[in-house]
Amino acid sequence: MDARRAIAELRELDRLTGGPGGARRVCWTPGWEAARSFLTSLLAELPGVEVERDAAGNLWATLAGRSDATVVVGSHIDSVPAGGWLDGALGVMGGLEVLRAAAGAADPPRHTVALVDWADEEGARFGHSLLGSSAFAGTLDMDSVEALRDGEGLALPDALAEHGVDTAVMNGAGDRRRDRIAAYLELHVEQGPVLETEGLPCGAVLGCVGVERHRVVFEGRTAHAGSTPMDRRSDAGVAAARVVAGLQEIGVRHGGVCTAGRLDLDPGIVTAVPGGAELLVDQRHLDPDVLAAMLAEAHSLWSGASAREGCTVEAHTLWRIAPTPFDGRLVDAARSACSDAAGSDRALPSGALHDAAQMARLVPSVMVFSSSSGGVSHAPSEDTPEADLALALAAFGGLARSVISNGVGEV
Amino acid sequence: MDARRAIAELRELDRLTGGPGGARRVCWTPGWEAARSFLTSLLAELPGVEVERDAAGNLWATLAGRSDATVVVGSHIDSVPAGGWLDGALGVMGGLEVLRAAAGAADPPRHTVALVDWADEEGARFGHSLLGSSAFAGTLDMDSVEALRDGEGLALPDALAEHGVDTAVMNGAGDRRRDRIAAYLELHVEQGPVLETEGLPCGAVLGCVGVERHRVVFEGRTAHAGSTPMDRRSDAGVAAARVVAGLQEIGVRHGGVCTAGRLDLDPGIVTAVPGGAELLVDQRHLDPDVLAAMLAEAHSLWSGASAREGCTVEAHTLWRIAPTPFDGRLVDAARSACSDAAGSDRALPSGALHDAAQMARLVPSVMVFSSSSGGVSHAPSEDTPEADLALALAAFGGLARSVISNGVGEV
Repeated sequence: MDARRAIAELRELDRLTGGPGGARRVCWTPGWEAARSFLTSLLAELPGVEVERDAAGNLWATLAGRSDATVVVGSHIDSVPAGGWLDGALGVMGGLEVLRAAAGAADPPRHTVALVDWADEEGARFGHSLLGSSAFAGTLDMDSVEALRDGEGLALPDALAEHGVDTAVMNGAGDRRRDRIAAYLELHVEQGPVLETEGLPCGAVLGCVGVERHRVVFEGRTAHAGSTPMDRRSDAGVAAARVVAGLQEIGVRHGGVCTAGRLDLDPGIVTAVPGGAELLVDQRHLDPDVLAAMLAEAHSLWSGASAREGCTVEAHTLWRIAPTPFDGRLVDAARSACSDAAGSDRALPSGALHDAAQMARLVPSVMVFSSSSGGVSHAPSEDTPEADLALALAAFGGLARSVISNGVGEV
Repeated sequence: MDARRAIAELRELDRLTGGPGGARRVCWTPGWEAARSFLTSLLAELPGVEVERDAAGNLWATLAGRSDATVVVGSHIDSVPAGGWLDGALGVMGGLEVLRAAAGAADPPRHTVALVDWADEEGARFGHSLLGSSAFAGTLDMDSVEALRDGEGLALPDALAEHGVDTAVMNGAGDRRRDRIAAYLELHVEQGPVLETEGLPCGAVLGCVGVERHRVVFEGRTAHAGSTPMDRRSDAGVAAARVVAGLQEIGVRHGGVCTAGRLDLDPGIVTAVPGGAELLVDQRHLDPDVLAAMLAEAHSLWSGASAREGCTVEAHTLWRIAPTPFDGRLVDAARSACSDAAGSDRALPSGALHDAAQMARLVPSVMVFSSSSGGVSHAPSEDTPEADLALALAAFGGLARSVISNGVGEV
């Protein structure tokens, strides 16, 4: 694992497909294909490595080991528009170094080693995150996926066909490979402030939090802001505002996160008591029981706030996903690797989703996070100090070496 | 005062310029001119009444009395788009009945009596409320008025010219008449729920509340909703939400009204902690000292809420107007008239602005309110039971008769 070379290749990738305006690697666009070309040009230099795209457009680079059982390392090279230089790319280039180290060794590795570059992790063009890894896991709802269109109205199947992907068969992308995978390891930037705040360059990841996402609709009575006394109002905005404040307390109390990211008042003018309010609520926790408790408290909160204002309320589930804890043995291995490389065995949950959440359904999986400066992500200003990147890459390299040599059960 | 005839003429006006979709009498449109034609056709039947438009497009119908000192009754026949059948029109038709009664009497009245139909009370097309009465009072800021455009981009001076109004001279509309006016009396629907709630058909109005209107801008830090722990956030939405809840308490505590009618979160997506929030706040009270105290408490509220969330806050004044108390002698006269007609001398502030607020700067003024069903206004469903209208018209007629006969000081 040559961490400095990985950083240099990340800089070169940014020069080719990013720059001051941010990463330009939205999946199923020329920028993404350019990033892929750079990656395949680097892979072409590795002896014994076989490169192919699967039916979902995921890129695989495989080095045969003494056993068919495969340790997969990787992440995604695609980005959001004007994205950061590290989000996804760090794990791909870190995985490339793992593969390079194995390919350069005198003897074949004990396990087969594969680098994967997942297609369309971000869902930036069609709105479906984790597209490639979901197809690999065989969990795509193809009817809804095939109905997706981009901002120009182009249908997803037509766009993917231009990149050699036939949506009719993409959900079988993993059929040939899935059963041979022994472990999945992914390096990623934290996209949050926890490691930086604690002065740590990297950490092991316990799993991906579960998400409860709801649209909460309050209905009161629109009224004249001047001529309607306070005691004659049913102010949907006040009901929603009390919920926003209360949600913060639920998140704090349970050690999870609760966010009210959008609130629309109706009619939304300064001279009218709002008769309607629509609130988008996002709650996350790694423990399914705690997540359920947080949601139950949120229901009480919006029922109580509505009753107090004489409003009605309805909550609609927008999206929910159960928490995905990572493999306990691999989490321990990742903590050891972080401790060896950077002196801390800190482990933290991931508040964001990753391809690893799809893989964890299939095979023992774990992630390593590098710190993120200011916790900023999905922005051109996304950054991590090079020293932290080097230590995170070193920790990830140590973890991969250990798993490739020893397997999951024996690390 | 024939209240039933006034109600019948209101129904006929609604048939001509309203209907199930609501009133269609937006000022400076053909619908408004149609309403004016109906009014002038009724005025043409009155002996001794002289009709003319002043330089601001206000319509005056004058019956000479034994004295030049003039008692003015009136309101506005213009409406918002899809407005109510009574807002403004009630006071015009009620004033017409006052004029008709005086014109039909055997002897000329002691005071000259004038009905006024103010132009563009609603400001529905160009956004400037009380346009005609402000011009009459000579208080228009002509530079800003002449810069106004409607939704189609047509400049206000061009639109008004089509209706015979020259903006170069409109601010002098009152020059000839102002000094002769002894009193201004206006009947209007309450546009609030107070009278209906108390089971009263009408009430005397103490004055128009003052208004403090502010745009409050909170700035925190946009962050990932999943990966940013609660204790690492500066959530501008939470700060604004606490202000919304706290404003309600300020309104209740002071017996005024506080409204947060619009709140915009930035970036306003479910997956981001809002780094920005913009809140529109409206506070009203009849007492200037109390209004100032309410505003001071609001400032403390948004400063405190911002500090708590680690946000900054700036408040920008959008609009403010001092309270306009009505003439104490005329308020007493209006209470007596309501008591005589409807058995209650209830007096209440007006939470909305009216042309009477402009006139009260110049001359002794007062208003009478009828009840409003459900407090609904500026909507096709605006309504008042005919029995309440009849009693409110009777009270207004009694008030006008008394002032016309006795003057302001001797009622």
